Amino acid sequence: MENKKMNLLMFSGEYDKAMAALILANSAREMDVDVTMFFAFWGLCLLREPEKVTMDNKTIHEKMLNSMTPKGAEDLPLSKMNFSGIGKEMMLEMIEDNKAPRLIDFLNGARKKGVKFCGCKLSMEIMGFTKEELIQELQVIDAKSYLKDALEADMQLFI
Amino acid sequence: MENKKMNLLMFSGEYDKAMAALILANSAREMDVDVTMFFAFWGLCLLREPEKVTMDNKTIHEKMLNSMTPKGAEDLPLSKMNFSGIGKEMMLEMIEDNKAPRLIDFLNGARKKGVKFCGCKLSMEIMGFTKEELIQELQVIDAKSYLKDALEADMQLFI
Amino acid sequence: MENKKMNLLMFSGEYDKAMAALILANSAREMDVDVTMFFAFWGLCLLREPEKVTMDNKTIHEKMLNSMTPKGAEDLPLSKMNFSGIGKEMMLEMIEDNKAPRLIDFLNGARKKGVKFCGCKLSMEIMGFTKEELIQELQVIDAKSYLKDALEADMQLFI
Repeated sequence: MENKKMNLLMFSGEYDKAMAALILANSAREMDVDVTMFFAFWGLCLLREPEKVTMDNKTIHEKMLNSMTPKGAEDLPLSKMNFSGIGKEMMLEMIEDNKAPRLIDFLNGARKKGVKFCGCKLSMEIMGFTKEELIQELQVIDAKSYLKDALEADMQLFI
Repeated sequence: MENKKMNLLMFSGEYDKAMAALILANSAREMDVDVTMFFAFWGLCLLREPEKVTMDNKTIHEKMLNSMTPKGAEDLPLSKMNFSGIGKEMMLEMIEDNKAPRLIDFLNGARKKGVKFCGCKLSMEIMGFTKEELIQELQVIDAKSYLKDALEADMQLFI
Repeated sequence: MENKKMNLLMFSGEYDKAMAALILANSAREMDVDVTMFFAFWGLCLLREPEKVTMDNKTIHEKMLNSMTPKGAEDLPLSKMNFSGIGKEMMLEMIEDNKAPRLIDFLNGARKKGVKFCGCKLSMEIMGFTKEELIQELQVIDAKSYLKDALEADMQLFI
């Protein structure tokens, strides 16, 4: 399906939803569909590089929020049944039982396959995440640039 | 609105969201709109037939997850205000006060009206749900088949 | 981008998701894109006018649900990290640190810019919200009218 285009707005920052989104993104790229993922609010947590997270030059609120939020793909919580992490451990073991890849593998797959990663400028400012702390191919754009891309796409999802 | 097509990705498995989705699916069919519902992850819980749920031939993780998750439409929790079930009881009584149908009625309506029900193959494997435990008209498909359908539709929602 | 059209189904009634949606709605209007927002279930809480909320002529269930649900935009909870309100206070202070407007400002902006506000008739009946308690430009419509609008739009999101 060449010349088709999918746009995903990544809002929630939850392990299982991000898994669903990245499976769609990888599959779409394998079908030659153009894919843009736009990360806003909690969705940005997926793109943090744990070893690059820093508290330098941040306000007290930013420091608090930055330390309380997940640091990268494998640190995201489940949207349900989290049970202080028991649900997620179980889910990860079930993924392993089925020899299915983990979230970080799907993220790296999407990066290799040419998914376009965009981050919401305003969200990054409010949450205090800097470009340097997130995956390097991220383009920082505003809501209007997202809309231009989404309105031209053949499908859009809010995840 | 003939020749129009709607595709709903059912991810969350919550009573109120499933209600919204099935009201849309029923209404769309009454307008001669083509409807595909694709169930992934928690969304699959809606399609479990309580009397067919079995623990035979399942791994220990599958048994745990299968017994901890809702068994069919009327067993789904609310997305909010669940308060150990009080919120849902109240919502159900309000639905009854208004002589509005319950979720299971909307599900059966959608089945009769020709909504296409598809289940995500990978999700079923990871969660350990077998085809025999779910409603019989379910077609098991992969992410690429979902994308083919969704990219040709006039609207797509992630619910 | 004239002649383009966006349709947002507002289901969740959470501060951060409503913020994302209203930022998109305002930005789209500034680009001359047509915008319809359709409020269903918890989404309706955003449009309640706190000073017009009344318990007159309501059933006991409606009174309970009406007093337990958020009364207007600034009363909505965060979708995550709510921590009995601490997370939201912090988020509001971070928004202030960045001189970004609050949710109520984005709502009023959308009203001034000509976003079309529609409320789901069935949801209003079930939840016991009357037209008089919600913002005055709200049009009350049914699921089929929503579908007609959404199926003709260039993008649709379920938020």
